[in-house]
Amino acid sequence: MDRVYINSIGTHAGTEVTLRGWLYNKRSSGKIQFLLLRDGTGIIQCVVKQADAGDETFDLCDSLTQETSLTVTGTVRVDGRAQGGHELVVSGGGIEVIQIAQDYPITPKEHGAAFLLDHRHLWIRSKRQWAILRIRARVIRAIRDWLDSNGFLNVDTPVFTPNAVEGTTTLFPVDYFGDTVYLTQSGQLYNEANIMAFSKVYCFGPTFRAEKSKTRRHLTEFWMVEPEMAFYDLDQNMEVIEGLTCAIVSDVLNDCREELEVLERDITKLEAVQSPFPRIHYDEAVKRLNDAGREFEWGCDFGAPDETELGSQFDRPFFVTHFPSQIKAFYMSRDPERPECALACDLIAPDGYGELVGGSQREDDLDELLVRIGEHELSPEVFEWYLDLRKYGTIPHAGFGMGLERTVTWICGIEHLRETIPYPRMLHRVRP
Amino acid sequence: MDRVYINSIGTHAGTEVTLRGWLYNKRSSGKIQFLLLRDGTGIIQCVVKQADAGDETFDLCDSLTQETSLTVTGTVRVDGRAQGGHELVVSGGGIEVIQIAQDYPITPKEHGAAFLLDHRHLWIRSKRQWAILRIRARVIRAIRDWLDSNGFLNVDTPVFTPNAVEGTTTLFPVDYFGDTVYLTQSGQLYNEANIMAFSKVYCFGPTFRAEKSKTRRHLTEFWMVEPEMAFYDLDQNMEVIEGLTCAIVSDVLNDCREELEVLERDITKLEAVQSPFPRIHYDEAVKRLNDAGREFEWGCDFGAPDETELGSQFDRPFFVTHFPSQIKAFYMSRDPERPECALACDLIAPDGYGELVGGSQREDDLDELLVRIGEHELSPEVFEWYLDLRKYGTIPHAGFGMGLERTVTWICGIEHLRETIPYPRMLHRVRP
Repeated sequence: MDRVYINSIGTHAGTEVTLRGWLYNKRSSGKIQFLLLRDGTGIIQCVVKQADAGDETFDLCDSLTQETSLTVTGTVRVDGRAQGGHELVVSGGGIEVIQIAQDYPITPKEHGAAFLLDHRHLWIRSKRQWAILRIRARVIRAIRDWLDSNGFLNVDTPVFTPNAVEGTTTLFPVDYFGDTVYLTQSGQLYNEANIMAFSKVYCFGPTFRAEKSKTRRHLTEFWMVEPEMAFYDLDQNMEVIEGLTCAIVSDVLNDCREELEVLERDITKLEAVQSPFPRIHYDEAVKRLNDAGREFEWGCDFGAPDETELGSQFDRPFFVTHFPSQIKAFYMSRDPERPECALACDLIAPDGYGELVGGSQREDDLDELLVRIGEHELSPEVFEWYLDLRKYGTIPHAGFGMGLERTVTWICGIEHLRETIPYPRMLHRVRP
Repeated sequence: MDRVYINSIGTHAGTEVTLRGWLYNKRSSGKIQFLLLRDGTGIIQCVVKQADAGDETFDLCDSLTQETSLTVTGTVRVDGRAQGGHELVVSGGGIEVIQIAQDYPITPKEHGAAFLLDHRHLWIRSKRQWAILRIRARVIRAIRDWLDSNGFLNVDTPVFTPNAVEGTTTLFPVDYFGDTVYLTQSGQLYNEANIMAFSKVYCFGPTFRAEKSKTRRHLTEFWMVEPEMAFYDLDQNMEVIEGLTCAIVSDVLNDCREELEVLERDITKLEAVQSPFPRIHYDEAVKRLNDAGREFEWGCDFGAPDETELGSQFDRPFFVTHFPSQIKAFYMSRDPERPECALACDLIAPDGYGELVGGSQREDDLDELLVRIGEHELSPEVFEWYLDLRKYGTIPHAGFGMGLERTVTWICGIEHLRETIPYPRMLHRVRP
């Protein structure tokens, strides 16, 4: 017999099936016991009537503790009132215990964040964490599906990188057989080499930042997808970002209704995420901030409160473009008409979720790039191989990086980045 | 006008299109110049006839060097003799140079491996590397598609791991704000926690091994997919491995004919990769080795020559099962009927490509696991959270790890693992 899972129980209505899983919760009402069974794909109510299942099976229910592993055999019954629309009517002898769980530490009562993070290996069994990490997986798949079906090739960039590109303060050094290497902070420079072999590429992997920040927006290890496209300019870059973002939201809305309900996410806010996204020039962003009564000077970078203020003015993610070059990376192209501005675009989420994407057209001229490297006081030797890309058939190109955990935090409508990654690594947190 | 790429040129037959890319090679024949243009998706021959395109365009061809970036406008012509079945008849004024590449270092002549690896950022533009890395991307997609559509959830496991599980000799330590952590060698222990929340999971990311080996089978940074399934035993584990392997080969055969041709891969060997895969007990493997004249004692692990000998006896990947427990990891279940054997299975590729997959049913009994940890002289404190999984609703389960680069090496039919990853990291190689 094929395995039956709770998320496809509907196809077995009226038949007897065996489910395998863990006791999530239970209650009793006189001669009926209600067991909430979870099997990793969902939760179903199992009804044990003393009259039908017999005394032995009925009494067995008393011994079942939270997170006891067991198999339950019964008949699938359609029930509109039940969660998921079905319940399982347990047969006589239909309960087999695998292991009684003694004193499972995470009880239905409230626990503190530190305690839950210490027990992350168990906490992920809770409904809310289950929902968030299922949405994370759906977002990953949406990203890959959309890129793969739009002509992008997945080209993995290395974690071990030989050179410190911009200072070493947020880098993790590693002793590599006597050499010092660093854990990657971005695959972009490699992506720029890869587009000249494959046209449109992306890397998607873990990224590292040794930041001593303790804010709810920082992880030391996080995942980032970085697409890069040959022969694309800033506008075309934004079209890609927009298409990808809409695809992610649409896929989650289609496939994760149950998870979004668990999180009590306001669906209408996600449904509003449609093309076109507003595009505002940095100049206009400054004006909007000043008009809203915030002190903000041209030339500064946005802080979280600035992004929140701007985000409150839109019902969907929006672009800010043409940031001052001085606050942006050396490899970004400059606006030929206003060289003090970079051909950069950030995608900012509404409702205070901040920056989801940072992107730009890249400087493709060798001499200009050398000037930038000088201005940023970087050493050209470090970039020798990268400069080759401007010598041997340089082309206009653009790309961006999207932070996975930030995107998932926004889609889930939750407060903490740390819940969007299975095992968060932060300043004081590297276990379990 | 929509962009036109070489790999979909067939849909534009008879029309004028503009292609953007790089000059791969050229030759001339009197009044005709033949330009091989590559755009990252493929290569097409562009025909420049002096009589049709005019003197200026015709003469421009003389200045075009290898890897010059340019756009070419012309009419797509069906030509059975041409690579890809089409060629581009260049219009007058149809060539626009973006940058003349001076002295591109990788010429059509032979180069040594060290030189090519030093220029990996350019080497990937070569046809053979292009083919290998396109197959790699297709394998990644095949793996994810198959797992995603068979009920597995992608749950990422951390790169920073707090504890040295089995000795520190092959671990890369990292200073984590004063603590020592290690770069992951496997997500398996985390996967075992994750199945108890999600039923069937996989992680797929970079993995690190500080091995001082210089063999063609070793990388310090490589990618591994590790599926893990709740309520699966050894046989069911092998069914998953078999299904996944067949799906990968089938997807590559369907979508990568051109790449396999570039590599001159014998397709019939891949077409033979069909279920069921032979399953031989370790006892039988020993006998087969001895019968073939190799000295091999029960209790030893296979070396590469042993795997090659066994592989020569099969036309497809095959399983060796029930290895001696003493040579396998502490977390593997033992065969209840022969406790000196582990419920383990390795999948070995034919033709000397060696082990693709290592898997097992996991020890799910707390007391047994504690005995194993003692026997392996590991410290139980390190495993505190892992042991929780045996306390709170333990269940039978199984899983495996498949090395991406080994799988791609085998599918491509090539000699060196280092060509199957975009930027290989080895003992003496961490650049570019």
